[in-house]
Amino acid sequence: MSPTKHLANLDRRVLLSSLAMLPLFSASLRSKSALAQTQSDPLPSWNEGATKASILDFVARVTTQGGPFFVPVEQRIATFDNDGTLWIEQPMYVQLAFALDRVKVMAAMHPEWKTKQPFAAVLDGDMKALAASGEKGLVEIIAVTHAGMTTAEFEMITSGWLATARDHRFKRPYTELVYLPMLELLAYLRANGFKTFIVSGGGIEFMRPWSERIYGVPPEQVVGSSIKNRFEMKDGSPTLFRLPEVNFIDDKTGKPVGINEHIGRRPIAAFGNSDGDLEMLQWTTLGAGGARLGLIVHHTDAEREYAYDRHSHFGRLDVALDAAAVNNWTVVNMKNDWKRIFAFDQAGPPR
Amino acid sequence: MSPTKHLANLDRRVLLSSLAMLPLFSASLRSKSALAQTQSDPLPSWNEGATKASILDFVARVTTQGGPFFVPVEQRIATFDNDGTLWIEQPMYVQLAFALDRVKVMAAMHPEWKTKQPFAAVLDGDMKALAASGEKGLVEIIAVTHAGMTTAEFEMITSGWLATARDHRFKRPYTELVYLPMLELLAYLRANGFKTFIVSGGGIEFMRPWSERIYGVPPEQVVGSSIKNRFEMKDGSPTLFRLPEVNFIDDKTGKPVGINEHIGRRPIAAFGNSDGDLEMLQWTTLGAGGARLGLIVHHTDAEREYAYDRHSHFGRLDVALDAAAVNNWTVVNMKNDWKRIFAFDQAGPPR
Repeated sequence: MSPTKHLANLDRRVLLSSLAMLPLFSASLRSKSALAQTQSDPLPSWNEGATKASILDFVARVTTQGGPFFVPVEQRIATFDNDGTLWIEQPMYVQLAFALDRVKVMAAMHPEWKTKQPFAAVLDGDMKALAASGEKGLVEIIAVTHAGMTTAEFEMITSGWLATARDHRFKRPYTELVYLPMLELLAYLRANGFKTFIVSGGGIEFMRPWSERIYGVPPEQVVGSSIKNRFEMKDGSPTLFRLPEVNFIDDKTGKPVGINEHIGRRPIAAFGNSDGDLEMLQWTTLGAGGARLGLIVHHTDAEREYAYDRHSHFGRLDVALDAAAVNNWTVVNMKNDWKRIFAFDQAGPPR
Repeated sequence: MSPTKHLANLDRRVLLSSLAMLPLFSASLRSKSALAQTQSDPLPSWNEGATKASILDFVARVTTQGGPFFVPVEQRIATFDNDGTLWIEQPMYVQLAFALDRVKVMAAMHPEWKTKQPFAAVLDGDMKALAASGEKGLVEIIAVTHAGMTTAEFEMITSGWLATARDHRFKRPYTELVYLPMLELLAYLRANGFKTFIVSGGGIEFMRPWSERIYGVPPEQVVGSSIKNRFEMKDGSPTLFRLPEVNFIDDKTGKPVGINEHIGRRPIAAFGNSDGDLEMLQWTTLGAGGARLGLIVHHTDAEREYAYDRHSHFGRLDVALDAAAVNNWTVVNMKNDWKRIFAFDQAGPPR
């Protein structure tokens, strides 16, 4: 290598690590820079091993023209769960954190909430009382915080919240708490002709305002849970008004249904982390023939992120973990397989 | 022009017109060849005039970088109704023709239908008795012909039907009864960075098997009406089973709702032909600012196709036609604006 080339590499390395220091520099942009850095390794945040190899092997198979597993570009559909697969879901789903914060903001206009459950529990920060209000309480909170406004208003509310809210442990915006190895994986698949979709139990309208900026996934490739909307002309302007009525729950058996409704083809690769993703992985990998990739992110790193599986309240991974062994799905051991978890992580993991 | 060039043009013309004779040669492919033929005119089947100019002007505005109406590529969303906008809908919706044919096929296993309405009416070809069975009768016919099988089975049934069914007047497969000027328009918009979607009152699963081949619109860009599906594991294979229960009606106020659910952005151009498209056109063009194109195909050509509007049973165009005048939507006068309607039309229209 010529001295000039050495210098160029050094400069690029210095530049990239300086950029990594800037907390405002978006994680997705950093991930693209990281990709450009190592042309020979499209997944630089993944440690070498069976997990990484299974991904590279799958992509090589389906993209090898004339090979027995070749898949035409238009059929290269990959679906990603969001909570716990692309970003954090502990100590609670980010969208639930939004709803609880929103109750606090709205409380100014609802003095009666001080003594009315489940709102009083939220205002007092009494998670035990909130849990006691059960699913009924949760539905009530979602209804008042997610419905009763136009889609445009809801987008402004959620975008404003995401811009200012900070995770308590990491003291960072939630959009920085996305997994760098998964951003690399999204970009790697797209570079190989895949169309990448999000298929999440979370709210479709909650994810769309930032999915393109953070994940490179445009709104029309986001599938999620939804409430009903009503079209209305108001003073000559068309609006969609969000109603407190469930339209679709994109979880468990709902995921293949949502995939069929929105995409209309079976994916050839699916990525999840919990029992809510079991049916999506089945729909993607079983009974269709050809090369298929099913992958589960197993949260095993309490030090850098969280460690949870069979007994977790959010993101429980139990039957899907057993199914992974039977169906030959790849299981990511976060602690061992990921060099870095977040873009702001500087060091490699303990090996 | 050099003699060689003349010869080359002649050869191409001969080739193209020979191809046009082959009924099996797909209409969409022919349309691409026609586009290649006249690089200077992206819409060769459109007569010059205000209608064509409104389309060209709109595309020029939104694609002129630095101009006041420039729209970034990712926001160039165009939505097309299907029945009556991209293919014929007379004397009845194609999907209804499918359902009636399907009843006849299934009758072999349902001897009781000979005396049971609305099925007896279908078997006797008694359209008056069928009409008398009303919406209830229609729903019953749709339920038995569209539900009770897996999504994979339904795709095989509809694909088999489309491959063999012929329109009674034109004696051609329905997939040849698509409007050549609209195929050119779809291709022209895509060539200018637009993502083209179908947003139809018709069944989403009825359109998807052929939308990519005929229109260049992939399944994931088709929005339509749907029935509910149930996910089931059967002998280790995942299936989606079609239930006789309405999931979503993608018509009238349902169109903006469907657009929001599937696309998650407002289109900047929308194309329809009936009152069922009114709200889609409102949602696309009103109250958002910037350049917007709303277009209505007005069926005015009884000789080459059909002439109908305010009093038609299928594809009624009444309030949307009045709204077009108020809202400055482009109205296509088929007879005057289209040189050719179908790819198999050889001559220009009477002027």
